Amino acid sequence: MALNDLQSEETVTLFATPDACPAPHLDVRDTAVRKRTLMGARTVEALADTFRVLGDPTRVRILDALAPGELCVCDIAALVGISESAASHQLRLLRGMRLVRPRRAGRLVYYAVDDHHILELLKQALTHVEEAARK
Amino acid sequence: MALNDLQSEETVTLFATPDACPAPHLDVRDTAVRKRTLMGARTVEALADTFRVLGDPTRVRILDALAPGELCVCDIAALVGISESAASHQLRLLRGMRLVRPRRAGRLVYYAVDDHHILELLKQALTHVEEAARK
Repeated sequence: MALNDLQSEETVTLFATPDACPAPHLDVRDTAVRKRTLMGARTVEALADTFRVLGDPTRVRILDALAPGELCVCDIAALVGISESAASHQLRLLRGMRLVRPRRAGRLVYYAVDDHHILELLKQALTHVEEAARK
Repeated sequence: MALNDLQSEETVTLFATPDACPAPHLDVRDTAVRKRTLMGARTVEALADTFRVLGDPTRVRILDALAPGELCVCDIAALVGISESAASHQLRLLRGMRLVRPRRAGRLVYYAVDDHHILELLKQALTHVEEAARK
């Protein structure tokens, strides 16, 4: 209120960058209340780390290949079109963020998408990019 | 089949890295059939680009702040605890991937999460990191 009353041409000039606002719209109390509903720092970091690992075409391809069900490293490599050692390297990174989980069967290791949230996440992201491409 | 028949101790030694398989499990035809169901290169790139933009704590915080509804740049900056120019810079990157959309109201610009798929994607990722932390 006080800021709006005081708003002068000078204030407007001060805030005249393209997106800047002439006055705050949430007051100090509103901001404090809304701040308490925000994610904690650790959760934000974990989310950003997860997205960072997903932000690589080869790893997206691996998860896409695993969507119908578990596969061993050589089949993942064949489907994605990379070497087995490259597939192993990427699978280690995906395991690190718990995006895939291994299942050992004797000498073989099968990999699957860790949980249905990952598949749902990929599905939502896919729908988003498809819709964005149509806009 | 032929590879399985031929499998010898020598072959096993050849594949004896931790995750390596002694023989392929999908045959050439299966691999070709499954390859056709995989995402195209352009889609994979768009998904990875989207995740890469999401893979930053400040941008995760901005989307979290916008989850309940649209806000102007100064309120986003106040909620996230960054300067308005830093908020504008991050919003430009988020706009570039159509993760947020602007609404101009006179001299003011309000930002909202672009579509419900983004919010659903964040929700699934949040559930995943919360579950992973409990494991």
